[in-house]
Amino acid sequence: SVNPDLASERQTASFSVEKLTVWLDGGVENTRTRRAVVEAIESDPEFSRENEYFESQNERYEAAVRKAVHLQKKMHEMGWTENGLEYKYIYRALAGDIAFLLHRIFMRSISMLGSDKQIAKWIPLASRCQLIGSYAQTELGHGTYLQGLETTAVFDITTQEFILNTPKISAMKWWPGDMGRSATHTVAFAQLYVQGKCYGVHPFIVQIRSLQDHSLCPGITAGDIGPKMSFEHADNGFLLLQSVRVPRENMLSKFCEVQPDGTYVRWGSQKINYFTMTSVRISLLSDEVVVPTMKACTIAIRYSVVRRQSELKPGEQEAKILDYQTQQEKLLPQLAAAYAFYFINGYLQELFDNGYKEIQKKNFDMLPELHAFSSGFKAVVTQQCTSAVEICLRACGGHGYSLLSGLPSLYTKILASCIYEGENTILLLQTARFLIKCFMAASAGQPVPPSVTYLAAVKPRRCPAKEKLDFLSPDIYTEAYQHMAARLVSSTAAKLQDLIQSGVKKHDAWNQCTVQMAQAAKAHCHYIAVKNFAETVEKLQTQAGIQKIMKHLCDLFALHGIFSNAGAFLHDGYLSGAQMDMVTASYLDLLPIIRKDAVPLVDAFDFTDKSLNSALGSYDGHVYQRLYEWAQKSPTNKQMSPAYEKYLKPLLHNKLSKL
Amino acid sequence: SVNPDLASERQTASFSVEKLTVWLDGGVENTRTRRAVVEAIESDPEFSRENEYFESQNERYEAAVRKAVHLQKKMHEMGWTENGLEYKYIYRALAGDIAFLLHRIFMRSISMLGSDKQIAKWIPLASRCQLIGSYAQTELGHGTYLQGLETTAVFDITTQEFILNTPKISAMKWWPGDMGRSATHTVAFAQLYVQGKCYGVHPFIVQIRSLQDHSLCPGITAGDIGPKMSFEHADNGFLLLQSVRVPRENMLSKFCEVQPDGTYVRWGSQKINYFTMTSVRISLLSDEVVVPTMKACTIAIRYSVVRRQSELKPGEQEAKILDYQTQQEKLLPQLAAAYAFYFINGYLQELFDNGYKEIQKKNFDMLPELHAFSSGFKAVVTQQCTSAVEICLRACGGHGYSLLSGLPSLYTKILASCIYEGENTILLLQTARFLIKCFMAASAGQPVPPSVTYLAAVKPRRCPAKEKLDFLSPDIYTEAYQHMAARLVSSTAAKLQDLIQSGVKKHDAWNQCTVQMAQAAKAHCHYIAVKNFAETVEKLQTQAGIQKIMKHLCDLFALHGIFSNAGAFLHDGYLSGAQMDMVTASYLDLLPIIRKDAVPLVDAFDFTDKSLNSALGSYDGHVYQRLYEWAQKSPTNKQMSPAYEKYLKPLLHNKLSKL
Repeated sequence: SVNPDLASERQTASFSVEKLTVWLDGGVENTRTRRAVVEAIESDPEFSRENEYFESQNERYEAAVRKAVHLQKKMHEMGWTENGLEYKYIYRALAGDIAFLLHRIFMRSISMLGSDKQIAKWIPLASRCQLIGSYAQTELGHGTYLQGLETTAVFDITTQEFILNTPKISAMKWWPGDMGRSATHTVAFAQLYVQGKCYGVHPFIVQIRSLQDHSLCPGITAGDIGPKMSFEHADNGFLLLQSVRVPRENMLSKFCEVQPDGTYVRWGSQKINYFTMTSVRISLLSDEVVVPTMKACTIAIRYSVVRRQSELKPGEQEAKILDYQTQQEKLLPQLAAAYAFYFINGYLQELFDNGYKEIQKKNFDMLPELHAFSSGFKAVVTQQCTSAVEICLRACGGHGYSLLSGLPSLYTKILASCIYEGENTILLLQTARFLIKCFMAASAGQPVPPSVTYLAAVKPRRCPAKEKLDFLSPDIYTEAYQHMAARLVSSTAAKLQDLIQSGVKKHDAWNQCTVQMAQAAKAHCHYIAVKNFAETVEKLQTQAGIQKIMKHLCDLFALHGIFSNAGAFLHDGYLSGAQMDMVTASYLDLLPIIRKDAVPLVDAFDFTDKSLNSALGSYDGHVYQRLYEWAQKSPTNKQMSPAYEKYLKPLLHNKLSKL
Repeated sequence: SVNPDLASERQTASFSVEKLTVWLDGGVENTRTRRAVVEAIESDPEFSRENEYFESQNERYEAAVRKAVHLQKKMHEMGWTENGLEYKYIYRALAGDIAFLLHRIFMRSISMLGSDKQIAKWIPLASRCQLIGSYAQTELGHGTYLQGLETTAVFDITTQEFILNTPKISAMKWWPGDMGRSATHTVAFAQLYVQGKCYGVHPFIVQIRSLQDHSLCPGITAGDIGPKMSFEHADNGFLLLQSVRVPRENMLSKFCEVQPDGTYVRWGSQKINYFTMTSVRISLLSDEVVVPTMKACTIAIRYSVVRRQSELKPGEQEAKILDYQTQQEKLLPQLAAAYAFYFINGYLQELFDNGYKEIQKKNFDMLPELHAFSSGFKAVVTQQCTSAVEICLRACGGHGYSLLSGLPSLYTKILASCIYEGENTILLLQTARFLIKCFMAASAGQPVPPSVTYLAAVKPRRCPAKEKLDFLSPDIYTEAYQHMAARLVSSTAAKLQDLIQSGVKKHDAWNQCTVQMAQAAKAHCHYIAVKNFAETVEKLQTQAGIQKIMKHLCDLFALHGIFSNAGAFLHDGYLSGAQMDMVTASYLDLLPIIRKDAVPLVDAFDFTDKSLNSALGSYDGHVYQRLYEWAQKSPTNKQMSPAYEKYLKPLLHNKLSKL
């Protein structure tokens, strides 16, 4: 039985939830496959997440290893392959707590950076799990600035080996996943020295643990870096190398090699390295960022129609909290953002696939644009989705703060996405550098990629909207975003040039513009996101019911952005104060409209209860019962705490009297 | 020895750190006492926090109980009393992990709501810890809306008892601290029924556990609500009452009573109840909100001068990350906010003390203003400080995400302050209600409290600033804030009236204005915070060095607020786009100025290393060494995980071959 307050929300849906689900999945075959994978995994007790919220870091790690090993068996049993349709749904179905993700990066880096001979040797071993790999790049003292890595690899010509060392504490490898306790091997990045000359950072395959008894190899110190805000299941590790010798053949050498006589040879382009990072940044957006945001919206919106609090109309039953404007204004823009970024993910994937085709033809022209887009959107989407999950958590009040709501673990995990795979501010500045370059080129009449031609067209303009309904026109708001982004890019470029012309050194001038650069990069991504949402809605013409609600969400996404970033649109008078009032009115008017379909809109994400793992967000809405049931399972209720015998009893009994 | 990069920051301080510390403490006697308390507590191994980051919820609870019991002994030993100067520093020195805080609320509620006879009976027992109290107000289904509580207390005239019941699952008490495992007694709030008539919510003293063996009393079901995002040490509990009988004397009866014949009598004013909440909201700001923000700033700023990353000037040593504009722009406004809210806390305390004096003279005139201010500032300060701590965490990159940085636990704890003691949105709307009322009164020429007379003076105006230096004048920016706040209040009031006049029902009209109401309330508080900071700086005339740097911080606080909320100032043309550019320029110019004193400014907060409990933030700056030392202490490194024998060994050995 479903809680009647939740059930009633589903009876009035303005569209078919199943049709929306299928459309989001990209077709009925995908939906069917996804559901089959989810069913197979969730029905297998080895993959249970039932006790996750009660487990220690050690227990979480153990469970993640168990699942990773079991998954191998499961895939074999089910006939799932790494190239099959099922594969992309497995990780989503597992909902994250699984070991050996770095083993894949280990394999990917050998495949991309290794010679044919190295690939032939290592990849079969790794595929059969005859070793467990990791990827040791980040050090205690260096994350974003890879050129600054301090680990050294000195070529010993007499033994034909590289000698790897951690020369100081800040050079210790720190953070690599699967390394603290699991990995037997790793790809370690180190400064290559040959005959006293440094050739920069290169990757080396290093064995770190015995295959016989898992003991650390000679010269290796390694372990777990301890508790983190989340990722309890991942054994992020440290690694200290003391005169660790690896054969000459262990330097990955698709692009360069140290020959037996110590000659250093380099061939091929290094640009392709960016492409790996581009691919990782795009692929993490879906599973690690957009899906968790959709889950948070599902939990918070379902809870907000079950939770009743206070009187909205005097004398009536207490109102569902989603009927309050302030609650709608918290949650519905996050729902719209979840859809917007789901679509952007598709857009980036397409851009990437096209780029990849060109690259296979040895055409690298699209690399700068791809790099700029993947960097900027990685930053903007992780930032906005992290904020969305936090808003969802807080919108559920005290119960949202309980781990049992599922929201705290979504939040603490998604927060990391703002930091890993490129710190967001650094990434935004890379996007900004690209935009400034394109702006300069476009201003000088040179050709630029189609996505940034708009930068050439900066001129003083005013928004033509005359009444609030005009702001429900995608042309009107897309134009506004475009104008705003172009203005921020051009004014930052102008500031940079002015500073340089006034005699400030280039690097100082750049530094003095970085706050505004980051804003300009965000504005560009926001514009593309709005434009892409509007285009996605337009293409949907045949499915009227779905198109209508998607149009509302697109309007909400766009107007929320103008409402909450009003200064950028008012600054040069593109929007007047009166027009901003129209935006506000249209924006607030949309809230009760979307509110009506809020539950169907999250139902369409099609998360199972097990995958949400939330006492507040389950499909049946039995929030309070589930909180109570789950709390009783907590280890804190398993037996009387020793604190009673040790501290409370002496305290109370010392002074016991008749009360 | 101190890390030289950190040491050099201290040599160039533009003011005396010790003098600033003493001034912040409010005099040298306070500083001396604070340090003595901190020293006494930190040198006592019973209060050690060394293993905090590695402990389970059960272990944290046990430690918190141990500390609470030990504190009693310690206070006796040291001669510290609840009325002494030392008392206000104890909690800060303990840094939070201590049990029985709800025991104080239990006592406070009996003192305030109990009859003389009840006080005489219960307070001595509670003071001597012959019982342990809790405070059971919140239920599963009701938090903010107290009138909706569902627990019942029915008067049984034949036995002269109240019969307490939890009629449904949503009526279960949920969240009360110290209740899950510790408390023997509680003050439970329930709907009072006498002879079938409901008299609303009243407080009852209920025994829940045996004083002999701590077993639950008949009719009581209670336990811990399980894991939360923080507060692992607190046994937040649930409580289910099944026909639990308490004598008639157990209803707290300072203001009302059920007489033996069932007659219900009420006397006195209930308004005073608001005053308790007012007092709690103000007192939590210091220890739970401002102090953690100061700690986060200390950690992030010290780390940011030790961490070097990337080349700022080509060919030079890698730069301290605090030398990047983007890092300054993240951290320094948070530092300015920490100071601003420290001063606001003093302002509110003074307002409260004055109000209390009046109330003791039975003059309740100040109550609405006090309630509005404490509500609004509770919301604004907790919101902004939570955001500040998150920014500090993220500004430390990956290492900030490690629990060992101290930042995750500061964040997960301060986040709760946005929810407890009044959910922030609800509080802002209470402030807004007061502001709208005052605006209406002022517009009608009626008298209003001095803090809101400015609302009467709304008129179209323009900021007189002509160049960027003008924006370093407190008059200029305080005026801008005042104008903006008044405009938001008046335009929201106008919208509300328009809606009502156009026939929308009052409660619907109110609901449709709440998003803007909340903005108006925030704007008012922001204005008062800026004004108060500027006045605090002005009063500092005699201490030139300190006044100068405080003036910079005040400017930064004010201009950051305008920069990041530009739309509100541009909307009606009070600031032009050109003036906004001046604001931006002045704002960005301030960053490198304050950056020079950033370390001395956090040193002045005078936190010991033990109190920060951060591998990144300690006074000596040995960041990397400490991360490594602390990580080695983690239970994850104590022994080989059973996962090896169970899962990894079979996996690897199955397929073992010579590599």
